Amino acid sequence: MSDADAVSPAESSIHLPPRPTREVIETLVKELELLLGKRITTAAGIREQHGRDESWHHPSPPDVVCFPHSTDEVAAVVKACARLGVPIIPYGVGTSIEGQVIAQHGGVCVDLSAMNQVVEVRPEDMDATVQPGVTRTQLNAHLRATGLFFSVDPGADASMGGMASTRASGTNTVRYGTMRENVLSLTAVMPDGRIVRTGGRARKSAAGYDLTHLLIGAEGTLGIITELTVKLHGLPEAISSATVAFEDVSGAVNTVIASIQYGIPMARIELLDALSMQAVNRFSGLDYAEKPTLFLEFHGTHASVKEQAETLAELCHDFGGSDFAWATQEEERQKLWQARHDAAYAAKQLRPGMEFLATDICVPISKLAECIEATQQDVEESGLVAPLLGHVGDGNFHLVVVIDRNSDEEMATLKAFNERLVQRALAAGGTCTGEHGIGLGKRRYMASEHGEALNVMRAIKAALDPQGIMNPGKMV
Amino acid sequence: MSDADAVSPAESSIHLPPRPTREVIETLVKELELLLGKRITTAAGIREQHGRDESWHHPSPPDVVCFPHSTDEVAAVVKACARLGVPIIPYGVGTSIEGQVIAQHGGVCVDLSAMNQVVEVRPEDMDATVQPGVTRTQLNAHLRATGLFFSVDPGADASMGGMASTRASGTNTVRYGTMRENVLSLTAVMPDGRIVRTGGRARKSAAGYDLTHLLIGAEGTLGIITELTVKLHGLPEAISSATVAFEDVSGAVNTVIASIQYGIPMARIELLDALSMQAVNRFSGLDYAEKPTLFLEFHGTHASVKEQAETLAELCHDFGGSDFAWATQEEERQKLWQARHDAAYAAKQLRPGMEFLATDICVPISKLAECIEATQQDVEESGLVAPLLGHVGDGNFHLVVVIDRNSDEEMATLKAFNERLVQRALAAGGTCTGEHGIGLGKRRYMASEHGEALNVMRAIKAALDPQGIMNPGKMV
Repeated sequence: MSDADAVSPAESSIHLPPRPTREVIETLVKELELLLGKRITTAAGIREQHGRDESWHHPSPPDVVCFPHSTDEVAAVVKACARLGVPIIPYGVGTSIEGQVIAQHGGVCVDLSAMNQVVEVRPEDMDATVQPGVTRTQLNAHLRATGLFFSVDPGADASMGGMASTRASGTNTVRYGTMRENVLSLTAVMPDGRIVRTGGRARKSAAGYDLTHLLIGAEGTLGIITELTVKLHGLPEAISSATVAFEDVSGAVNTVIASIQYGIPMARIELLDALSMQAVNRFSGLDYAEKPTLFLEFHGTHASVKEQAETLAELCHDFGGSDFAWATQEEERQKLWQARHDAAYAAKQLRPGMEFLATDICVPISKLAECIEATQQDVEESGLVAPLLGHVGDGNFHLVVVIDRNSDEEMATLKAFNERLVQRALAAGGTCTGEHGIGLGKRRYMASEHGEALNVMRAIKAALDPQGIMNPGKMV
Repeated sequence: MSDADAVSPAESSIHLPPRPTREVIETLVKELELLLGKRITTAAGIREQHGRDESWHHPSPPDVVCFPHSTDEVAAVVKACARLGVPIIPYGVGTSIEGQVIAQHGGVCVDLSAMNQVVEVRPEDMDATVQPGVTRTQLNAHLRATGLFFSVDPGADASMGGMASTRASGTNTVRYGTMRENVLSLTAVMPDGRIVRTGGRARKSAAGYDLTHLLIGAEGTLGIITELTVKLHGLPEAISSATVAFEDVSGAVNTVIASIQYGIPMARIELLDALSMQAVNRFSGLDYAEKPTLFLEFHGTHASVKEQAETLAELCHDFGGSDFAWATQEEERQKLWQARHDAAYAAKQLRPGMEFLATDICVPISKLAECIEATQQDVEESGLVAPLLGHVGDGNFHLVVVIDRNSDEEMATLKAFNERLVQRALAAGGTCTGEHGIGLGKRRYMASEHGEALNVMRAIKAALDPQGIMNPGKMV
């Protein structure tokens, strides 16, 4: 060969399947009824309910919704769709926030919520195998008697399959990792209906390509996750939580940086800015200082928690922290973290009747203070109502922008603001999304974040899903 | 379409390029000389040196060895090879042990040892960017003044690129993870010469397919890693090490299981069996009890190390541990871990003049005691000299089989033994390799370990490397 281009993998713009015709859908429905009986529907109400998520993206219903009970049933559904070239959208509990489950090309929504069995818990190996419809709180309730817990805790009570598909994280990622670190292996149905297992239960392996991590975060564009084996962690002997207020955001962030460099194994380290604290106070009838505040949690033995907390208290003092409020009793801790978890809903009350959109960038921690400061200035200049909160131990923060979705002007301001925010993150060596994913909402940043690597992703997509039927129009 | 098979990705047997003709090599050499001047050679001695690794696999030299200095030079070499369809074998320092660098299809060895710069260390972010030829001890020497260290420590002083490519781990993986957990992002040259960056420096991201993890462990079959950004860890305030002997292996393994369930954050927890201890004593002039022995290390604050060590001592006592030997001074600790690191060489001395082959399986920890016991019985029945040692906190162990490579009978015994060992691991839900990789030596287990998933791997390989020129004949 004489030309390097001739050996390039296809730089394909990804193939998008046509919207299925009524005839194709009728044929498919008949076929799927043979497989699933009454567990398939074209009822408008159910289709509409499955065509939206918790985002501001425009809903679009699938043509069909089905409710398989097993990996084999999922495989049969996928094979039927593949034969007819019909789009497939995997669906957990619909808590995605970048439009990941919206069926803008029509097709079949595969609702996995009925696959909600905890298949096996193995306390000696500290792992569990679950079906994808199991939610994180369901799994933790199931584990109650074992002294173990599953750590990843996004805001919503999402399904495990959905959490893996969006590479979810949460408040204790700084200590326990994201879904990336907590999934040992997967069973998945590929776009042609083949069933694959991506690994065994060994804690490590050097055998073959890492298909587990390829499917984690793929948002259902490469296959449907039908079973997950996940790591569990031991419940700590002691837990202590605290809040501490700072005069400014940089004092809080510098405390975080120092705590990580000291090697304090913080379980949670969350930042709420002054406006978030004001919203939380108002929403939950609390009386926190309305200043930038860190929400902290320590896990360990009694002695180690005490030592961690003392070291952190010294650091806070060095960086201007005050108004320490400790919570060691379960009830106090619950109250503290409930306030944190409610922060997004609390924000919404700042403009009653309005809706919110959550931004989601993540930067190297050395850039966090400067990135937050520039962002807060931008918020002020834009005139947006946008309290800030973040998993600052990871360099990840959100703005809960409270907005009138019917105002074109506000939406334009928001879009321009989010664009600047993402560019600020990328310029700092960060990412356009720490945990919410790409879906529909952030596709346009994929090229600037990944450059040539996006074409490699597209080559993989084209190789595994040549018809482009798996969650078309998302991510790549 | 009417047939599901028609939409399947190619179940391709992977394309193997033909061995390049003399004419093709001559053309290529002329072209590469223009790029690299004297940093390309066909000298027999250098080619032979690059056609072998530290394994028992039959060496086979490449046709050409080149020594690029930059990502751009690597890309230019790969483009030239791609145009001519010539195999490319990435080479670090040649310490692989499953034949990963052997050039059995000829072609161009890309020796990355001259790309050995530590590009940047960012103490605030606790990360570093390095070229692939940097070795782990070189990086740690470079970090000495920062209070940080890079954790992954395979037996050899391997290169960082090679360690990423084989998904290497080592003695402190139980606490700090393998290369999989310690690489943040990569720069790589793809099989067509394109340069991609697989991510930024944010600690987490939900943007796009995880190409970082796809390349980690791919053994150079999908591209050449030319830069790595890796996580660093803070040097602990206190370190304490110990050895403790047990009457039997199961006592030692049960101690390990209990320590993990107690949540003791062990930094190292290594097992040597009685024969290994005998070899170590003889090799290093030591007087350890010649019983199954755990080598332990604790990292943390002074108080936390003391607490960890006390809890572990209680557990050891419960499971029949005795002969505690503590080492808290740097010099004692070095001596203790030197003995552990020398164990493979010590084993060799059990049969002077013979060579050794290291097996490498990893199983769920609940299966470890029974798997080790069955394996030791198998060793006895086979008549092999095979001391056992392992990273038991991960469920990973090796046998250092000391063998006469010129004896067909011994080699046949060894092969049959290794086959049973791997099948035992797979039956236990484990893997045929915990950290040594597939290379040439374990290709035949890929199908039984991965089943249909192997075809997905092959589809990815075919999509990214349609000519099959990147390290042909390895892994997939």
